[in-house]
Amino acid sequence: MDMNSYVTGLVEGEGCFCISFNLRTKLNTNIEVRPSFSISQNQKNLELIKLIKNFFGCGAIRYSKHDRCYKYEIRNLDNLMKTVNIHFQNYPLIGSKKHDFENFTLICKMMKSNLHKNKDQLEKIIDLAYQINCGKRKYQKSFLLKKIAK
Amino acid sequence: MDMNSYVTGLVEGEGCFCISFNLRTKLNTNIEVRPSFSISQNQKNLELIKLIKNFFGCGAIRYSKHDRCYKYEIRNLDNLMKTVNIHFQNYPLIGSKKHDFENFTLICKMMKSNLHKNKDQLEKIIDLAYQINCGKRKYQKSFLLKKIAK
Repeated sequence: MDMNSYVTGLVEGEGCFCISFNLRTKLNTNIEVRPSFSISQNQKNLELIKLIKNFFGCGAIRYSKHDRCYKYEIRNLDNLMKTVNIHFQNYPLIGSKKHDFENFTLICKMMKSNLHKNKDQLEKIIDLAYQINCGKRKYQKSFLLKKIAK
Repeated sequence: MDMNSYVTGLVEGEGCFCISFNLRTKLNTNIEVRPSFSISQNQKNLELIKLIKNFFGCGAIRYSKHDRCYKYEIRNLDNLMKTVNIHFQNYPLIGSKKHDFENFTLICKMMKSNLHKNKDQLEKIIDLAYQINCGKRKYQKSFLLKKIAK
């Protein structure tokens, strides 16, 4: 079996590319941008989660008591770019998650160039991020856009 | 990308091996045994579902209005044995679904040998089937066991 292709198949169903935002008045823009890639599995699948962590060679596993799941997550921008983003360029997603990944990797590149510290570019990042399907959001898009320091 | 390994990864998260049972008083045992392999996806992922159907080369796609999903399903025993069961022998699952598949393929083999028509063997099939995690069941195991014609 080819583990690269297996991981792409697993992520097609279970993976999550997410860009979340926090209000941080100490920042010039008022808004912190946090990219993450994660896979959650029922607690009986801990061995699988460990295998995926080994595969990417970075990130961390946390247990959520609430939904009895293990969540494997990579948050560090450099790690995301060196492992996750390269992987899905070489072994591309096929379904609707492909579009999530494309927006995600574009935002990572913009952050690497520090564009998230520019207010106009941050608006573009928020727009791209809110096209990604990654569950319930803390803030509405319109609320965030208003919070960008002018 | 290797599609065989991709499909195993996708099924690890999204696939379902199921053995369901129906009461059929016309049968000697009173109970009909129905194996199925399925993958459900949100309606926006219809192209992916079609690709998986092409991959296995059999089965059917149905739309569920209730949950806005497309479900790809193989029910024919010979097709299951020739495509699904062979695939996961060659490209094995890794996580907890591996155990579901092992019970599923064992039951398919028993059915191919007509053992589901033997009352004692049917008890064994029900026992193996109820170890598989495939959502809410129509009948409790104890109810089915009592219904086997003695």
